[in-house]
Amino acid sequence: MKIKAIYEKNDLKLDNYNLLLNETLFHNANGYIGIRSAFEEGYPDDFTTIRGQYINGFYDFTQAKQAENIFGLTQEKQTMLNVADTQAINIYFDDEKFNMFEGTVLKSKRWVDMEKGITGRFVSWRSPKGKELEITVIRMASFHQLSLFTIEYQINPINFSSDVMIESNHNGNVANYFDPNDPRNADESFQYLTPLSCYIQYGASYINSTTSKSGLEVCSCVKNFLSGESERQFIINESNAKCQMCTFAQPGKTIKLVKYAVFSDSLRVEDCKIHAAAEMKKALSVSLQELYKYQEDYLTEYWENCYVEIQGDNELNMALRYNLFQLIQSVSKDEYGNIAPKGLSGEGYEGHYFWDSEMYIQPFFTITNPQVTKSLIAYRYETLGMAKENAKILGHKKGALYPWRTIMGKECSGYFPAGSAQYHINGDIAYSIIAYYLATKDGDFIQDKGAEIIFETARLWMDVGNFYNGQFHINDVTGPDEYTCIVNNNYYTNALAQYHLQWAVKLYFQMRKLPEFRKMQRRIRLGLEEIDGFKKAAQRMYLPYDEKLKINPQDDSFLQKNRWDIDTIPKKNFPLLLHYHPLHLYRHQVCKQPDTILAHFILEDSQSQETMRNSFEYYEKITTHDSSLSRCIFSIVASRLGMEDKAFKYFGDSTKLDLMDMHKNTKDGIHTANMGGNYMAIIYGFGGVRLKESGIYFAPILPKKWKGYRFRICVENSRIIVGITKDSCTFLLEHGEAKKINVYNKEYLLDGKLTIRREKASWREA
Amino acid sequence: MKIKAIYEKNDLKLDNYNLLLNETLFHNANGYIGIRSAFEEGYPDDFTTIRGQYINGFYDFTQAKQAENIFGLTQEKQTMLNVADTQAINIYFDDEKFNMFEGTVLKSKRWVDMEKGITGRFVSWRSPKGKELEITVIRMASFHQLSLFTIEYQINPINFSSDVMIESNHNGNVANYFDPNDPRNADESFQYLTPLSCYIQYGASYINSTTSKSGLEVCSCVKNFLSGESERQFIINESNAKCQMCTFAQPGKTIKLVKYAVFSDSLRVEDCKIHAAAEMKKALSVSLQELYKYQEDYLTEYWENCYVEIQGDNELNMALRYNLFQLIQSVSKDEYGNIAPKGLSGEGYEGHYFWDSEMYIQPFFTITNPQVTKSLIAYRYETLGMAKENAKILGHKKGALYPWRTIMGKECSGYFPAGSAQYHINGDIAYSIIAYYLATKDGDFIQDKGAEIIFETARLWMDVGNFYNGQFHINDVTGPDEYTCIVNNNYYTNALAQYHLQWAVKLYFQMRKLPEFRKMQRRIRLGLEEIDGFKKAAQRMYLPYDEKLKINPQDDSFLQKNRWDIDTIPKKNFPLLLHYHPLHLYRHQVCKQPDTILAHFILEDSQSQETMRNSFEYYEKITTHDSSLSRCIFSIVASRLGMEDKAFKYFGDSTKLDLMDMHKNTKDGIHTANMGGNYMAIIYGFGGVRLKESGIYFAPILPKKWKGYRFRICVENSRIIVGITKDSCTFLLEHGEAKKINVYNKEYLLDGKLTIRREKASWREA
Repeated sequence: MKIKAIYEKNDLKLDNYNLLLNETLFHNANGYIGIRSAFEEGYPDDFTTIRGQYINGFYDFTQAKQAENIFGLTQEKQTMLNVADTQAINIYFDDEKFNMFEGTVLKSKRWVDMEKGITGRFVSWRSPKGKELEITVIRMASFHQLSLFTIEYQINPINFSSDVMIESNHNGNVANYFDPNDPRNADESFQYLTPLSCYIQYGASYINSTTSKSGLEVCSCVKNFLSGESERQFIINESNAKCQMCTFAQPGKTIKLVKYAVFSDSLRVEDCKIHAAAEMKKALSVSLQELYKYQEDYLTEYWENCYVEIQGDNELNMALRYNLFQLIQSVSKDEYGNIAPKGLSGEGYEGHYFWDSEMYIQPFFTITNPQVTKSLIAYRYETLGMAKENAKILGHKKGALYPWRTIMGKECSGYFPAGSAQYHINGDIAYSIIAYYLATKDGDFIQDKGAEIIFETARLWMDVGNFYNGQFHINDVTGPDEYTCIVNNNYYTNALAQYHLQWAVKLYFQMRKLPEFRKMQRRIRLGLEEIDGFKKAAQRMYLPYDEKLKINPQDDSFLQKNRWDIDTIPKKNFPLLLHYHPLHLYRHQVCKQPDTILAHFILEDSQSQETMRNSFEYYEKITTHDSSLSRCIFSIVASRLGMEDKAFKYFGDSTKLDLMDMHKNTKDGIHTANMGGNYMAIIYGFGGVRLKESGIYFAPILPKKWKGYRFRICVENSRIIVGITKDSCTFLLEHGEAKKINVYNKEYLLDGKLTIRREKASWREA
Repeated sequence: MKIKAIYEKNDLKLDNYNLLLNETLFHNANGYIGIRSAFEEGYPDDFTTIRGQYINGFYDFTQAKQAENIFGLTQEKQTMLNVADTQAINIYFDDEKFNMFEGTVLKSKRWVDMEKGITGRFVSWRSPKGKELEITVIRMASFHQLSLFTIEYQINPINFSSDVMIESNHNGNVANYFDPNDPRNADESFQYLTPLSCYIQYGASYINSTTSKSGLEVCSCVKNFLSGESERQFIINESNAKCQMCTFAQPGKTIKLVKYAVFSDSLRVEDCKIHAAAEMKKALSVSLQELYKYQEDYLTEYWENCYVEIQGDNELNMALRYNLFQLIQSVSKDEYGNIAPKGLSGEGYEGHYFWDSEMYIQPFFTITNPQVTKSLIAYRYETLGMAKENAKILGHKKGALYPWRTIMGKECSGYFPAGSAQYHINGDIAYSIIAYYLATKDGDFIQDKGAEIIFETARLWMDVGNFYNGQFHINDVTGPDEYTCIVNNNYYTNALAQYHLQWAVKLYFQMRKLPEFRKMQRRIRLGLEEIDGFKKAAQRMYLPYDEKLKINPQDDSFLQKNRWDIDTIPKKNFPLLLHYHPLHLYRHQVCKQPDTILAHFILEDSQSQETMRNSFEYYEKITTHDSSLSRCIFSIVASRLGMEDKAFKYFGDSTKLDLMDMHKNTKDGIHTANMGGNYMAIIYGFGGVRLKESGIYFAPILPKKWKGYRFRICVENSRIIVGITKDSCTFLLEHGEAKKINVYNKEYLLDGKLTIRREKASWREA
């Protein structure tokens, strides 16, 4: 069955809110470059635009001045840069200029075609003097050639003939967006990039710029091809190259401009200028149609790998496709970058990478495109040295502590109680490596990179924690729920640390005789005594449990605080973090997102069904979902607990969070973690998929409103298609060896096709 | 017996370390103005100077930018300003100029005369060309006329005759000192004051300046009188007025310049310029000798009130005198100011006021000069409105929360975990008001101001705390020990809150029928229901106690953390706050100062002798004394516990902390809280003085090295002289009504002279 894969908006509103929202929704990206979808011709002067083009992992340092100069606090952060603007195109004819804010817009639409990997814009417009024309713009950030961004710009004159001048701009004079009123954006304006040179070579313009502090360079190269071009001139200064081209317009004849832009940066290559020239040459070595074909081929494979379809809800399928398309647009394809909460679609959180990568996005890639996960882990491996330095800053003698937010590997948290104190980042990264290993059994990669990360981060638990009354405690850390900071024995952190330490021990004994492993072991001076320490700490890990409520308290003192009745909070006061002092939040039982529930999802075997259910019901009442990472977790655990309706309710509109701008900040970028979370809610939630050492587990439930759903996952190079209907669960091994699978707690050997009666949610209680 | 009251330094070293130290040690202040003691003629260009003149309570706003823009965090602080420099005087003769860094210094000394209230400087100097002269400088910040600072500058030519030109400068072009490497100083240079006008009127120069943001004005006026003046000219620009005066030098004839400077500020008067002129007129209406006489009279009374003398240790007496002199120099005499940790002697902590005032300095004034305490409380009353606003920022619906550090009443903490989270400031202020009441029984003042503060701050406990398992808990606050922040049930905080609430209830029932009290009660809408709440919270206040160790844990989770063996820390790593990340400190049992021990001092009746002793021994081992507020408290409680040797050891060199520059930062200012603490260690420590509702308590011990000691205290307008010797304790009621006193737990009626056998320390254990 063919799923509609074009998301389209008709009759666009031209107010600033919608323009900014659409800049995000229709942005082009390929994991290396990202271009927000501003109008080529711009907006009126009094409109705000976040007219950005970004390179994944490309950053400058910027001051993060602390109000008090406390030892060890971050004083400098990194920020993702807005690089040269290559999207400007202006059309002049007679004494008029194409401008949707004058004259009459007869029709206007934009779309993203997720099978072809392109965005489109169509405008039918009548100028103030009555000239009508149609403009069609196709943009692409190429997956085939990551440096390349193309604009195919077509003009159809309807009722006039005239000389036309097309001005295609290449502008290196760019600054980052700032918003002093939102802590999730940069709060100061600063131009980070200084153009070093701007020149024309073989008909292409080059702008080569340097960062203010990080010592990086970026070069962009733009080349324009205009059909029926009669005349061309360049107007350049030190930071800007305008290419003015003339042609003649007449009805029935389409004028077509193709604008190629390539980017090169000194993080990845030695000489950006030479490399940019080579990339331009490469781009031009095939036709635009061929480039479109490569793009579609790439995506055909992608969609096949991450196939998921809900029967009977095409709107949801479309939203899901949109989410998964954004994930492949956003994720880095090399180890110089990772995936930011806003991908490459905006400047929210300054392009920093967080735990979102490991806990919300990797679970998608790991079972659909594990090579992406591998690259994300490789990024962490590249920054392991800085994580060790970071551990030292925090006072630890040994081990690595990954930064809470970073681009190049150094900590960027300005407010450490909700930043650097989130030591669980270490556990998250280890967890995601273990998940990759369980999904792929790729022992070579673990030996090569994964194990070293796991051990260095495991070491940190030994230094941060301590034995007390015979149990291993972890004090003064912050869990994922940032509405309570600097606590003792955060359940999520301790449970994850336990799992992490257990796996460190396991891997050690599994791999200690392998030569590559031994080399690593010697390099990091890992001895049996240390492994023994890991084992003891894991065995005696203290996991808070409240006898009376029969729940896992979020931390040692969470339950002794006042519960905040969420219903009493005025609607305008959400999200709470923008309206209450941290101490007020910390002093109440209130959650931005429920980290205990998340722990129950990822480590479900640590607790009884009863404790999970009680905890779910307890935290549900005090969670605001101010984080877009919250509802999907409730949905997954509701599925796990057999609460079908709840699972569906939480899943709800979450897939349309960005399309409907439900958090009112999609202008700052998409929400990639939420997108990964939505996928998880289906596969790990409704599908009940779990990868464990003992095999692959399924426990599908079916929301009442769905006829069925199907998805494909990839485990150890085998591909399995899972189909759920009202009555049955079908498992089809597409290729690969026969696999043991566990469905509803019964083992089966999957060797071809297997159909099992679908059980009701209540099976779990049995 | 006459105590030597001149502290003198001979043969001064002219290196930069000593110059900066002496700028502090010999500064002049009177609680309104403070002038650091730089050389009138300055230092060589490559020397650092903190050449400051300050006005108590006079501030500008300055940015306190947060690295992340979190709701409710301080974004603007206040800073004490360096106002116009009036101390510059230069001597020119022939082609030479007086300059101690050229030629030969034959003799050089400086002193502070604490009976006369002046500082002195004497230099005997031979110029590079062989001209010898002696210079004597007497400086005074007048207690009689607070706006006035005088310099009496005498030159004695020894072996030459020549024309002399004296240049006396008045400079409004001044900036604050900054040191980017020390969090206890400002870390950015910024000129806050902009001169508005600079003019000469009736032979005096005026500089009138305005602050950059706070909208305040300050005017300084300087007038010079030179003996044998032959010629005078002024050289002025928009920010500077130089007065050049000529005279003739010859051996045997002293040249004398008297330089008067007065200051006026718009915090206190409407028109600074008019007021400055009037103040100059007033200063000149009497002779300098009369001004000196007033100064001495003022101090005679002061010394009488706070008389304390150790028999057989004149060095210690001198140091003590130095401490007490600095306290009267530093403390504000009106409600526009308070007393900063550095007094008016330097820019450390930017002139902010902390709890030091209430807990370390008021206990001295309350029993020696209670009108000073009254003024300090009035300052808090003036800023009560802002404390209510501050409470709202922190999310509290009702009540007042005083800022942790402030000048004009708004919070200046840039780092709230060790700042605004120190809710105990409310209890400290209430405690000090109650102490004032116990010492003076000044019910009118309590009705007028004290009670309202007590109630508004008591209200806050009700909002910050909550009942849990039937007990009243206070979560997420920070106690005085900043090496552990944001904790639950800090013993100090809870014990103090209990006392505070108990007294709120007590005052209510004592005063509720008084008319002024009723007015206040109506104004703040204080009802019986609320009082009932106070009572319940106090009754059920949770005070952490560890059954095993039989100590009061500092907070709920303190004991479950690793103990940090202080002996393993390299010497260079003290103070720890300059060398370890806060999380590392928080995660260990280590104290900057022991707040539980402080609680045991001020609220000794809350715990058994045994618990106090165990706690003392426990915390002693993990306290670094990185705070200058630490040792004196250990000394007091050691006295209380009968550990005479320990009490003496902790008291030790603490009195010479600044004179010996033991914390290596006296250049940034004196340590006023330590000075108050030293006094407390004698009177409240060795003397065992306690003011309780049930009367005045004494329990004197005598350090082995002392023959005896004597002190005078003032209680309810009665003055009691206490004398301790090896064998006896003598109490002499100087005037006032007969008083019940309690000595060694026995009651006596003091009506004249009373002599009691001195008991050994062991009496307490009986």
